[in-house]
Amino acid sequence: MKTYLDCIPCFLNQALRATRIATSDEAIQRKTMDLVLQILPTLPLESTPPEIALEVYKIVYYTTANHDPYAEIKRESNQLALSLYPKLKNIIETSLDPLLTTCKLSIAGNCIDFGPQEQYGDLETEIASALESPLAIDFFEKFKKTMEASSQVLYLGDNAGEILFDKIMIEQLNRDYNTHITYVVRDKPIINDATMEDAIAVGLTDIVDVISNGSIAPATVLNQCSEQFLKLFEASDLIIAKGQGNYESLSNENSKIFFFLKAKCALVANQLNAKIGDMILLNQ
Amino acid sequence: MKTYLDCIPCFLNQALRATRIATSDEAIQRKTMDLVLQILPTLPLESTPPEIALEVYKIVYYTTANHDPYAEIKRESNQLALSLYPKLKNIIETSLDPLLTTCKLSIAGNCIDFGPQEQYGDLETEIASALESPLAIDFFEKFKKTMEASSQVLYLGDNAGEILFDKIMIEQLNRDYNTHITYVVRDKPIINDATMEDAIAVGLTDIVDVISNGSIAPATVLNQCSEQFLKLFEASDLIIAKGQGNYESLSNENSKIFFFLKAKCALVANQLNAKIGDMILLNQ
Repeated sequence: MKTYLDCIPCFLNQALRATRIATSDEAIQRKTMDLVLQILPTLPLESTPPEIALEVYKIVYYTTANHDPYAEIKRESNQLALSLYPKLKNIIETSLDPLLTTCKLSIAGNCIDFGPQEQYGDLETEIASALESPLAIDFFEKFKKTMEASSQVLYLGDNAGEILFDKIMIEQLNRDYNTHITYVVRDKPIINDATMEDAIAVGLTDIVDVISNGSIAPATVLNQCSEQFLKLFEASDLIIAKGQGNYESLSNENSKIFFFLKAKCALVANQLNAKIGDMILLNQ
Repeated sequence: MKTYLDCIPCFLNQALRATRIATSDEAIQRKTMDLVLQILPTLPLESTPPEIALEVYKIVYYTTANHDPYAEIKRESNQLALSLYPKLKNIIETSLDPLLTTCKLSIAGNCIDFGPQEQYGDLETEIASALESPLAIDFFEKFKKTMEASSQVLYLGDNAGEILFDKIMIEQLNRDYNTHITYVVRDKPIINDATMEDAIAVGLTDIVDVISNGSIAPATVLNQCSEQFLKLFEASDLIIAKGQGNYESLSNENSKIFFFLKAKCALVANQLNAKIGDMILLNQ
């Protein structure tokens, strides 16, 4: 997905939010905004939004000398999600279609995103709403069939907190399918995206292979990823890609990818012919 | 009111909206955004938001070679407001406190604003809601008392469409007080702000003196206003200032001013200790 002119104000909002989390020094905040204003005209709109976002956040991390402003927020998100683990497991175990419920919960968990939005709604309300709502784009049956035929699955994570929902999904997939799953995190902290530290924090490393994609983009920007990752990306039969960033960076890639996300901005929603807040399970 | 860093993304959104109204040429849209990105770091945040907005819109008007992109929208707003005139007059005539009702309607009409927002809600719903809601900041009693003691009143208009609500308010003030009122419009088109053309369109020029403030800022930026205006500004006993732009540009000025506005952005609402959507009748 290319970057739209509408993304420009959004990048500036994101820069301001991240900078304010990192520092209350207004001079640094102004300097950050000025640098972002200066860099944006130099970046090609043909790039995907996460590629440009990465350059924007690099400025924030440089001016604030803080390479992980969302660290505390990420820890809190993981803790909050972990506190819901027993409840989520119970919902799945007592549901009529545990895999569908798990998929919906995984998408509900994608609400924990500090890129396109300042805050997310109450997580338990999000969960309740997800369980009651249909998927706005629904490739669930195809997903099940493709899973049946897959021996190697790549699961591209998105955010801290959400990663606990991914763990629950992988527990269910491990139960339902005889498939090897590899979970992928970002290489270093970027926004509130999940890294190896988060995978360890929610115990994901105990149940599945977890690797870094070798890139610090808030997405899966293939030309920035490691060889190890790219080989797995190529060799996998099915790829689960969580979240808007992965959709934005991979929407023009191959048909093995199943996108699991909540639409959180008007442009992504529009591209999907969906509405903001819709739950998407898409295979192209 | 000074400009906040939060205003920067808003200026870019405004530039994009105005440019898209003026042209569908994506190259011009990109050029506009690039120029706005380049100019913003050079502008002092100590300026008021309308002063910076003016520089932003100048770029839009230059790149699109269109000095009035909102012309058609302004005409439609005037027509819509005029179509409600008999209904509004009836509401006032049958109300228990016609002047208070008029003030509330005048503030409700301030929703017709294409600066901070892309669209406004349904006008009749806005009117119904205004009639049912209290003023969030309520200097109505002081306004009445000050009107009693005033022989010269300056009424600073804001937007097209809204200007019909101002006409109704002036009809009521002319009935209730023995005061000379002068109504003020912007000198040339800027966003959807009211100019002399709009004053003529809604028949305001038939009932009151209407002058330009000599400036094209979307507000009342005193150091850009004409001598004629400044003399009246100085000599008036009471000044009615409509809308966010006039509040932003005059909030640090004298105590003769009564601000009539709907709070339409988080920063203005915050500065007023109010909420977005609140109706404000403020004297400082």
